[in-house]
Amino acid sequence: MIATVIGTGLIGGSLAISLKEKGVAQHVIGVDQSAAHLARAKELGIIDEDATLEAALERTDLIVLAIPVDGLLKLLPQIMDKVKPGQVIMDVGSTKNIILQLVAGHPNRGRFVAAHPMAGTEYSGPEAAVKNLFTNKTIVLCDVKNSDDDALEMIENMVDQLQMRTVYMNAEEHDLHTAYISHISHITSFALALTVLKKEKEQGRIFELASGGFESTVRLAKSSPDMWVPIFKHNRNNVLDVLEEHIHQLEQMKTLLEEEDYDTIYKLIQKSNKIRKILK
Amino acid sequence: MIATVIGTGLIGGSLAISLKEKGVAQHVIGVDQSAAHLARAKELGIIDEDATLEAALERTDLIVLAIPVDGLLKLLPQIMDKVKPGQVIMDVGSTKNIILQLVAGHPNRGRFVAAHPMAGTEYSGPEAAVKNLFTNKTIVLCDVKNSDDDALEMIENMVDQLQMRTVYMNAEEHDLHTAYISHISHITSFALALTVLKKEKEQGRIFELASGGFESTVRLAKSSPDMWVPIFKHNRNNVLDVLEEHIHQLEQMKTLLEEEDYDTIYKLIQKSNKIRKILK
Repeated sequence: MIATVIGTGLIGGSLAISLKEKGVAQHVIGVDQSAAHLARAKELGIIDEDATLEAALERTDLIVLAIPVDGLLKLLPQIMDKVKPGQVIMDVGSTKNIILQLVAGHPNRGRFVAAHPMAGTEYSGPEAAVKNLFTNKTIVLCDVKNSDDDALEMIENMVDQLQMRTVYMNAEEHDLHTAYISHISHITSFALALTVLKKEKEQGRIFELASGGFESTVRLAKSSPDMWVPIFKHNRNNVLDVLEEHIHQLEQMKTLLEEEDYDTIYKLIQKSNKIRKILK
Repeated sequence: MIATVIGTGLIGGSLAISLKEKGVAQHVIGVDQSAAHLARAKELGIIDEDATLEAALERTDLIVLAIPVDGLLKLLPQIMDKVKPGQVIMDVGSTKNIILQLVAGHPNRGRFVAAHPMAGTEYSGPEAAVKNLFTNKTIVLCDVKNSDDDALEMIENMVDQLQMRTVYMNAEEHDLHTAYISHISHITSFALALTVLKKEKEQGRIFELASGGFESTVRLAKSSPDMWVPIFKHNRNNVLDVLEEHIHQLEQMKTLLEEEDYDTIYKLIQKSNKIRKILK
């Protein structure tokens, strides 16, 4: 089949590579509002051909929207207006509720499968695209009851061929869970980077001591604001909810440290160690 | 030379391996209050021999204290009381100020070199010891003016042979910098793990979606409370200082999100992206 990837950055580019490599698509068309990204994606062999959206829609089987979620709000309804019988649209957006509400009543809603692969890195653009980004990762498919059977089947087959693990959720569940498992990690990293950069400015020499633990905790602070501001906007209520809880936990640590209640700090750390069961 | 490692866990065990492998020591004696750790360290070939502290002190050239910083407070003065001419004592503790104040007036202060290798993992015990943990890592040597020339020279030679990069600091600087570059990362991870574990309990299914970004941010929450509570205790003022600043940054994000001031959030994320210059 022919696949079109709209947005040839980290996720779209990596998906284009995998679709070809795993034999899901024989030909991948790239569409991007950035001419530079598109040229680079072609140069790197990530896409077979670049085209306008209109030209791609003339002959593609699958359309994957791999753009920030604010762009999705504009482009998804336009593509759903133009989609032909048999064509399938998929997104890879990190938030789902607002988008699915927006297209809920669309006559071509059935052609759309809402997807969120839980994979990525802190880098962006076609240069960031890598082989096997999705292998053994989880993909969330949302509100699949509203997708046509054949559309869902195409995506489920694709997911199998990409060797991904599928989780089905409704949009509300998805947005709540990702706030806890992904969005808060980014806010924490951004805030921690700001904290340390500020101190470095006052004090200097801080980064001479940066080691693996620090790097691990702040690496997400390299992530693009173009991607993340729209996510925080779309998932504002859930993000505020988890942010409040996280601040509460930090305040608690602070109070315990002020009161020198080391026994309780010990117990809290022991409790947090239970995360071992979840992480490999 | 003969080296004695007191504490055969992650750091002491890894150091024992490297001392032998790089030819710094021909024989490594292990001392540990846990008989199980000591037996395991010998079984794994990390140490050549186990001994009591007293027996080891009879014939060792170098004594490395690789135990939590609260244990160091008790044991370091005792060992300084017993140290023989020519013997050198080194620690690997994550805090320095309290310990160096404690031994400031000791007649054998010159035999001690205060060191902190900026290397580790979230695991502990002899099983966690690994080859090359220290290669290309930074080691901080503190208040070296108070160490005897020959003692410092032995440690500097060792550090060279381990292929580490040396940074010299006074104890106050060290404790301030590590609060920002290491201790706060651990508090954040512990608090984030508690936040998510709490929500998981209420909500379930959260961890189905855990991916690399989450794992990276919370992996330090697997760290041992036996090591970390004493560090927070010793470095309480600096940790409180950075924790306050971090909470302030998170509160700012929260307020901006409440007010839907996405332009300012965008600018803050851009600013935090400057961490790219520091991280590889």
